[in-house]
Amino acid sequence: MSPRFTLDPFIEQYAHRTSSMLSSQIRDLLAVTARPDIISMAGGLPFTQAFDPEVILRTVRRVLEEDYAAALQYGPTDGYAPLKHSLVEVMREEGTVCFPEDIMITNGAQQGLEIITKIFINPGDHIIVEAPSYVGALNSFQSYQPRIHAVDMDEAGMIIDRLRVMLRELDAGGNHVKFIYTIPNFQNPAGITLSTERRAQLIEAARDYDCLIVEDNPYGLLRFEGTAGPTLRSMDRERVIYLGTLSKIFSAGMRIGWIAAPHPILNKLLLAKQSADLCTSSFTQRIAHIYFSEEDWRGQVRRLLEIYRNRCHAMLSAMDEHLSGLAEWTRPEGGFFLWASLPDYVNTSEMLASAIGMKVAYVPGSGFFPGEGGENCMRLNYSYADDEMAEEGIKRLAKVIKREVSLAKALGLDKRS
Amino acid sequence: MSPRFTLDPFIEQYAHRTSSMLSSQIRDLLAVTARPDIISMAGGLPFTQAFDPEVILRTVRRVLEEDYAAALQYGPTDGYAPLKHSLVEVMREEGTVCFPEDIMITNGAQQGLEIITKIFINPGDHIIVEAPSYVGALNSFQSYQPRIHAVDMDEAGMIIDRLRVMLRELDAGGNHVKFIYTIPNFQNPAGITLSTERRAQLIEAARDYDCLIVEDNPYGLLRFEGTAGPTLRSMDRERVIYLGTLSKIFSAGMRIGWIAAPHPILNKLLLAKQSADLCTSSFTQRIAHIYFSEEDWRGQVRRLLEIYRNRCHAMLSAMDEHLSGLAEWTRPEGGFFLWASLPDYVNTSEMLASAIGMKVAYVPGSGFFPGEGGENCMRLNYSYADDEMAEEGIKRLAKVIKREVSLAKALGLDKRS
Repeated sequence: MSPRFTLDPFIEQYAHRTSSMLSSQIRDLLAVTARPDIISMAGGLPFTQAFDPEVILRTVRRVLEEDYAAALQYGPTDGYAPLKHSLVEVMREEGTVCFPEDIMITNGAQQGLEIITKIFINPGDHIIVEAPSYVGALNSFQSYQPRIHAVDMDEAGMIIDRLRVMLRELDAGGNHVKFIYTIPNFQNPAGITLSTERRAQLIEAARDYDCLIVEDNPYGLLRFEGTAGPTLRSMDRERVIYLGTLSKIFSAGMRIGWIAAPHPILNKLLLAKQSADLCTSSFTQRIAHIYFSEEDWRGQVRRLLEIYRNRCHAMLSAMDEHLSGLAEWTRPEGGFFLWASLPDYVNTSEMLASAIGMKVAYVPGSGFFPGEGGENCMRLNYSYADDEMAEEGIKRLAKVIKREVSLAKALGLDKRS
Repeated sequence: MSPRFTLDPFIEQYAHRTSSMLSSQIRDLLAVTARPDIISMAGGLPFTQAFDPEVILRTVRRVLEEDYAAALQYGPTDGYAPLKHSLVEVMREEGTVCFPEDIMITNGAQQGLEIITKIFINPGDHIIVEAPSYVGALNSFQSYQPRIHAVDMDEAGMIIDRLRVMLRELDAGGNHVKFIYTIPNFQNPAGITLSTERRAQLIEAARDYDCLIVEDNPYGLLRFEGTAGPTLRSMDRERVIYLGTLSKIFSAGMRIGWIAAPHPILNKLLLAKQSADLCTSSFTQRIAHIYFSEEDWRGQVRRLLEIYRNRCHAMLSAMDEHLSGLAEWTRPEGGFFLWASLPDYVNTSEMLASAIGMKVAYVPGSGFFPGEGGENCMRLNYSYADDEMAEEGIKRLAKVIKREVSLAKALGLDKRS
């Protein structure tokens, strides 16, 4: 997998930025863990089996009846206008007021991250992220060579006192922060939600230091417990760039995300989107539009919530049973992931090989940090595995951890720290 | 339309590269020329009406039957493997031997241009393009701030003697050229094809100065006259990065393009694609795969050729009748475009307003040059307008040009140069 072992005759030719573009551990792992005998909690996949293919076929038929030639044609760079109206409805479901003209449609939210970074970041610029944070975002950021600062989280999300210390110190050194990146709901990978109080404090801190906020909200509608806080975008339209996606509530395979942003920023993003890929698929945008305006998408989200709630509970029960005393973990109220911390003398990256040997997989924590951190942690995904697989997967994981802990104790490594 | 007139509170925040990201004239124009009373030869649209929607519906049904859950799911970053086999077949149709492992699937060929530029170009690096060249490519290139050098074309394509002079001068100044970008077949915008002899000379020049070649070949299979030359990729697999697309022979709305490149370069491109958008739509990739493996796509290409040949001839006849003595133009053997040159005292950008007043549109030539050039030229598209529209459009255009020429003569501007 690794290009390091390839003799590359072009090595002198690449742009400097490629030296900070490293392959994501998650992606490399997916290749291995796709083997059917491995129970993988490493992915981040929505459970697309929960869809009725008849609904999709019916939707496509309607798209073709309406205007097949336009569905097969290039479309406007900023997106298919009627779909923007549907996305306004989706955002309203979370209590966020947004207008179609505030929206640009992207090829998944990942493209939003890429082009936001492209228009804002010069090499050496400063940005702030949560620790841990989404690998895909870190990849996009790093490819434009900023200095990335990470703020620790607790059970209520990013610790705003620490954010303020960081902002103050950077400011004292004459360094302005271009943006603060956050996933406020059921964060990937931590499964933590930013409390309502902290949301207000985050906005205030960003105002005090005149930073933009990039709010990435892929899981917002996938809350299966507790009460939703307001989106940051609904609290400050002029400071927050919002990223949405249909990948978790409709289909990741359609590649539809969107950005809601202040209009001058949208103008710049439009130029970046134009050079990135001209436009998002007219075909899938029209499918999404018909689906969200004619089908019972809210009913489908309720069905998904039921599934994800059960799967999350199944995994938490299995963890309570098999991992108590061996690890600590977060208890998400929605989304796809939870975050487990092992004794600090266990290195989850090093342990992964034996886990795969025991036919179970997870994502080691260190990949979610721009610098050091998370070496004793792991991300576990519960959205894709059914109850039985979760129980069996956690059992195998417990065995792997126990063996690792015994080994460490035998070698006296547990006394090191 | 223009962000220049917006009071932008974020103006100090953008990355330096945004100053070289300018809105494409073509895209801005599309907005105006979509008005139904205007005959637009400004677009570059394939004639998607020529498709049978029943074929598309049947293809989608097969995709859903085969594996609906996978079609709705994330896919591998490098693309859906079975589709790569279909693309190998498409390339073989042009006599190019390629293997599935040489291919990465992209969100249209435009994304290929973007990520190639991203992995190769540092600000200030040198690249060479044809003059004129494709606006979308120039946009991607400029957003990474290279120095772009343009080589004139004649009726046989890029003038290799001039390319050699340029390469020699740059080399003498200690400047290496990262890549030479060419559209060898029915070039956009010039409608010119690189002769077989020149292809060999181009490869030789690139070897002598150790440059890569980026071969952009969207129209290769749309040859309705004459004999095809070999693709550059088929002449040098280790030096040529090939860009293909299904936008012209299948559907632009599906957003499927691909890159065939040496493997070490593919490894780097994979990282760029990952941060750009994770993956291309699983849904449209599966549709394309079924379409190209089960439907008569070669028959469909033949039907398209018939249509485009007739439309090209209709436009050329109308031009012979109405524009003789007023302009000169290229006679394409395929593709979508021809290039017309007016007397050198006519500025086609300035003339555009009166053309739109006369309900006809074209793309002014200057936008296709990275620096100066093409001010008296225009690109005309014949793929989308039927015979009657072409005749009427050219008639209107002749009136506009005659008026402009008379005005220039009355003012004595024709004596200037």
